Order: sequence, then C-alpha cells, then structure tokens
Amino acid sequence: MLFPNFTMQEQLTRYIKGIITVKDEELDKILSFFKPMKVEKNELLVIHGQTSQRTFFVGNGCLRIFFITEDGQEVTRYLAFENNFATALCSFISKEPSLEFIQALEPTSLLYISHKDFYHLLEIIPSWENFYRHYLENAYVNNTNRLMSFLTLDATERYRQLLSTNPKIVQRLPNKIVATYLNISQETLSRLKSKI
Amino acid sequence: MLFPNFTMQEQLTRYIKGIITVKDEELDKILSFFKPMKVEKNELLVIHGQTSQRTFFVGNGCLRIFFITEDGQEVTRYLAFENNFATALCSFISKEPSLEFIQALEPTSLLYISHKDFYHLLEIIPSWENFYRHYLENAYVNNTNRLMSFLTLDATERYRQLLSTNPKIVQRLPNKIVATYLNISQETLSRLKSKI
Repeated sequence: MLFPNFTMQEQLTRYIKGIITVKDEELDKILSFFKPMKVEKNELLVIHGQTSQRTFFVGNGCLRIFFITEDGQEVTRYLAFENNFATALCSFISKEPSLEFIQALEPTSLLYISHKDFYHLLEIIPSWENFYRHYLENAYVNNTNRLMSFLTLDATERYRQLLSTNPKIVQRLPNKIVATYLNISQETLSRLKSKI
Repeated sequence: MLFPNFTMQEQLTRYIKGIITVKDEELDKILSFFKPMKVEKNELLVIHGQTSQRTFFVGNGCLRIFFITEDGQEVTRYLAFENNFATALCSFISKEPSLEFIQALEPTSLLYISHKDFYHLLEIIPSWENFYRHYLENAYVNNTNRLMSFLTLDATERYRQLLSTNPKIVQRLPNKIVATYLNISQETLSRLKSKI
C-alpha cells in the first residue's frame, strides 16, 4: 500500500457517510482530527486504571476490549475488526479510570481521535452530534446485549448466538480468545465446537 | 396537589434545563409530547418479549427495570425514583423485543413520551439531540457499571458500593428488592446488613 493513511481515511469516510449526511468541508474538518498509528500484536493501548483518552478506528487488524472478573478471569467484551470504532467507552465518557483494557490482537493500523478533539467536533459540527448519537445507541445496545448474555444465557446458548451473529470471531481468532469472548474455559469451547 | 400534571411538567422542565440550554418555545414543544399517566404498585409497564415504545419520566414513585437470569432469578438493573427517566432502553433504541421488564414498585405518577415523538423531537429540535446525547452517555456508563459489577465484584463489594453511591435504595425499598438489585439472596443481604 503506497498511501496507507489515505486508504484508512477513505475507509473512515465511507463509514461516516454510511451513518450521516455531511458536507465536504465538514468531513474534511472531521478527518483532520484523526491521526494514524500502528500497534504491534499484543500491545496494550489502555490498561485498567488508566483513563481512556482516545477513540480508535481500525483500518486493518483487530482490537479487543477486555476486563478481569472477580475470580481473575479475562473476559473479552468487544472485538473491533477493520472498519469499526473501539474504545474503553465508559472511561472515555466519564473521564474516570478504566475498568477495561484495550489490546491489539494482530499487527493493527488505526486512526485515533483524542477526547478533546472528539468533543470539540460536537461543538462545531451539528452532524457530528448526530453521528455520535448513532455511535452511542449502537454501543449501548451491543454492550448491554454482551453483558446480559453472561447473566442470562448458558455457555451453549452463548456459543450458538456467536455462530449466528458473528462467525468471523470463531473463524479468525485463536480458541484462547474466543473462550474469553464467551466467558468459558478453552475445554468447554472445544467440547461445544465438537458438539455443534 | 391541585395541578399534579403541571407539577410534573415543572419537574421535567427543571430536569431538562439542568442538562441543556433550550429556548422557551422549544421547551413548550418538547413538553407538549409528554403525557401524564398513573400506575399502581406492582403494575408492569413492559414485559419480556414486548417492545419498549415509551420513555418514562418519574414525577412521584419508583420504577424498576429487571431481567431474569439463566437460573431463573430476577435481577434489578435500574431503579428510577422521582425526577429520573427510565425505559427498557435497548428495546426502545432497537425496536427489538425487550429482555427486560418495567415495573412500578410504588403507586407512581409519570410523564411518558412515545418512541415516535421522541425521535420526531430529534429531527425538529437540535438541542434535543444534545439532551439525548447526555441521556445516552449516562445510560451507557450507569448500565455498564451495573452489569460489570455483577461480573467483577463480589457480594460484599457490591453492597459497600451501593451504600456509598445510592444509600436511598437500601433505606427506601424492601429487602427483597434490594437483594435483586445486588443479585444476591435475601439471606446474604441480611448477613451483610448485620456485618457492615
């Protein structure tokens, strides 16, 4: 790729235009606040206790958001592949220390925007308010469904749901990560894979 | 109270003005879409499987939002006392059937707005978009913290957190409800109350 940043900006443009109607000069302003960044496999972008000060748009690769349960298990709450946003959103909104970690699962190319610039855009570009509304609505529904699934579904139901809604996760990621996404042991995952 | 609706509209006005700057004619337009309603103690406003088509503002009384875990226990996700909004928000946003129930815990006076009118206001009043952004941000943070607390804190930690952040719940509501809010048995709650 000769113009990797240009390509990610095109990806982000497509993503934004898929959600809101925006004038060219507004779009240019929005894009000007997103900076490119590369992270290594396994690199941590936010750790528990830090404040999440950036929102990330994945150009290529994969980010995961995870937390640690009371008995010390990693649970993956969210996986962002290409053309998705991700951050430790509670901390990004509240400016409180994050309960969550953000980690690259693969070598990952990103665009990021700082908290300050994100909220500045809300002040100066009305359609960014509209974009953020959709972002928050999706985040609320996805996150609630994820966390509720740990409380209201058993392991088999969670695995079936994952296969029907997001099979890429099972196909692309190692069992170790898939198990943390389902909040089950690797042994239980192997048993479910052979059974279903 | 001679003018209970008028009083609730005043409460709602104070609530809205605490969050956004809004012109008088916009405020009148917003208030015109909120209708008064009274519900009995224990009455259900939304049950699992129904779509949540209204958002409620509590004038007097208390609403609880709860769901049922995989082993059949009621878990209270959210309690709205006076001057708070409540709905089964995932369903309200997505128009999918709700996983949650909405129930009045006391005789309750409400104002409600329909999904259609709520989204109509987003189209015609820019500051309502701003109001909804704050609503969604708060909902995201509160709901994530609530659901994460079930996964990352033990019973004692959850009880201590509740006493420090929301003691009114323990003071005002029966043990049976407080136990479902903490996702513990009434026996465990009694033990924690005598210990802490």
